[in-house]
Amino acid sequence: MARQADHTERRRLFAAAALSVISRDGLEGLTLREVAREAGFTTGALTHYFQSKDEVLIAASEFAAEQVRTPMEEVEHGASARDALRRLLYTALPTTTVMKGRWRFWVAFWERAAHSPQVNRVMQERYREWSNRIASLIRRAQDQGEALPGLDADLAARELVALVDGIGVQVLIAGKLAAPAQRQFIDSLIEVRLGSPPVRAAAAPVKAGRRPARASA
Amino acid sequence: MARQADHTERRRLFAAAALSVISRDGLEGLTLREVAREAGFTTGALTHYFQSKDEVLIAASEFAAEQVRTPMEEVEHGASARDALRRLLYTALPTTTVMKGRWRFWVAFWERAAHSPQVNRVMQERYREWSNRIASLIRRAQDQGEALPGLDADLAARELVALVDGIGVQVLIAGKLAAPAQRQFIDSLIEVRLGSPPVRAAAAPVKAGRRPARASA
Repeated sequence: MARQADHTERRRLFAAAALSVISRDGLEGLTLREVAREAGFTTGALTHYFQSKDEVLIAASEFAAEQVRTPMEEVEHGASARDALRRLLYTALPTTTVMKGRWRFWVAFWERAAHSPQVNRVMQERYREWSNRIASLIRRAQDQGEALPGLDADLAARELVALVDGIGVQVLIAGKLAAPAQRQFIDSLIEVRLGSPPVRAAAAPVKAGRRPARASA
Repeated sequence: MARQADHTERRRLFAAAALSVISRDGLEGLTLREVAREAGFTTGALTHYFQSKDEVLIAASEFAAEQVRTPMEEVEHGASARDALRRLLYTALPTTTVMKGRWRFWVAFWERAAHSPQVNRVMQERYREWSNRIASLIRRAQDQGEALPGLDADLAARELVALVDGIGVQVLIAGKLAAPAQRQFIDSLIEVRLGSPPVRAAAAPVKAGRRPARASA
């Protein structure tokens, strides 16, 4: 029992170290040696857990996913599903230093996923989880009369996923995009796809207090 | 003169080889040796032109940009700026095998741009060119009464750029997104931002024949 706990703990430590190294130095800086050094262990200790750079990358992605799961689940529990959707998408945006680091990691993950089937499989799982979170909230918004009933929730979710990824690229690489502009892109796509609330007034009247507060129309 | 022409030609040959190597094998496979081999020269011949992997990557990006410039300029010259905009965005989508290869290259370029200031500078130039192309067409569409006059063309261009990048990621990495769905995302964002034509009927009547043909409303 104790040994298993130690094993899991050590693995997480290496995963966290790998996340730091990749966020800071990119794929170029990702070596087993550097990850071990960052974690304060020998390369030999690391290779007991991971045999390749891709395995280290995957463990780092699991660690990163774990870290965002709790804040994401918190925002999902708001009374208004539409408001929760907006806040969920905001949590993924590169509006903070920490999230910019996560995006640098994420771009490295993309690069490897385009070439390694092993990394690609894990990335597809991550995207499935992410898309499902979004689609579930859209469906809940539909049930609550906060989204157009005829909307294809899965397709709208993929469009939102694409927009968030594109914003990540814009911010990290292609120049500046201030946080308010990032949020405005999200708000406006939600407005367009879900419709202006209340969208089904007759069937399920939406009280003013339950509507998401938006900066502008 | 002849020597200069040879020099330029040889440089392009290496750039094309680098583009192939990166599209096929990613950053992991990008070595000066492999690029030289792909081009049919010695590593020594290559290092006469490029001193680092980042320089090779930049040359490959210039070669790729050159190749898309001609088809892009062709679609831009259509009579309807709005239709030209739609077709311009379509040329960038990963709907063909060649374009999927380009997107794999582009993701590698992002990854390095997030860490190398030299690569980042070049990438920003590429995005400036790409955004300006889009913004110019939006402004032309506004002049022609095919887009809402109050629209911020630069902001709308950045939103379209973000969506195209996000589609690229979806297709390459996060699973399948068929060509019609890709185009539908583009069409629908154009429709939303530019407004349903004719958008300024009183000021500049838009003839039916000049309107972009869309599959569905």
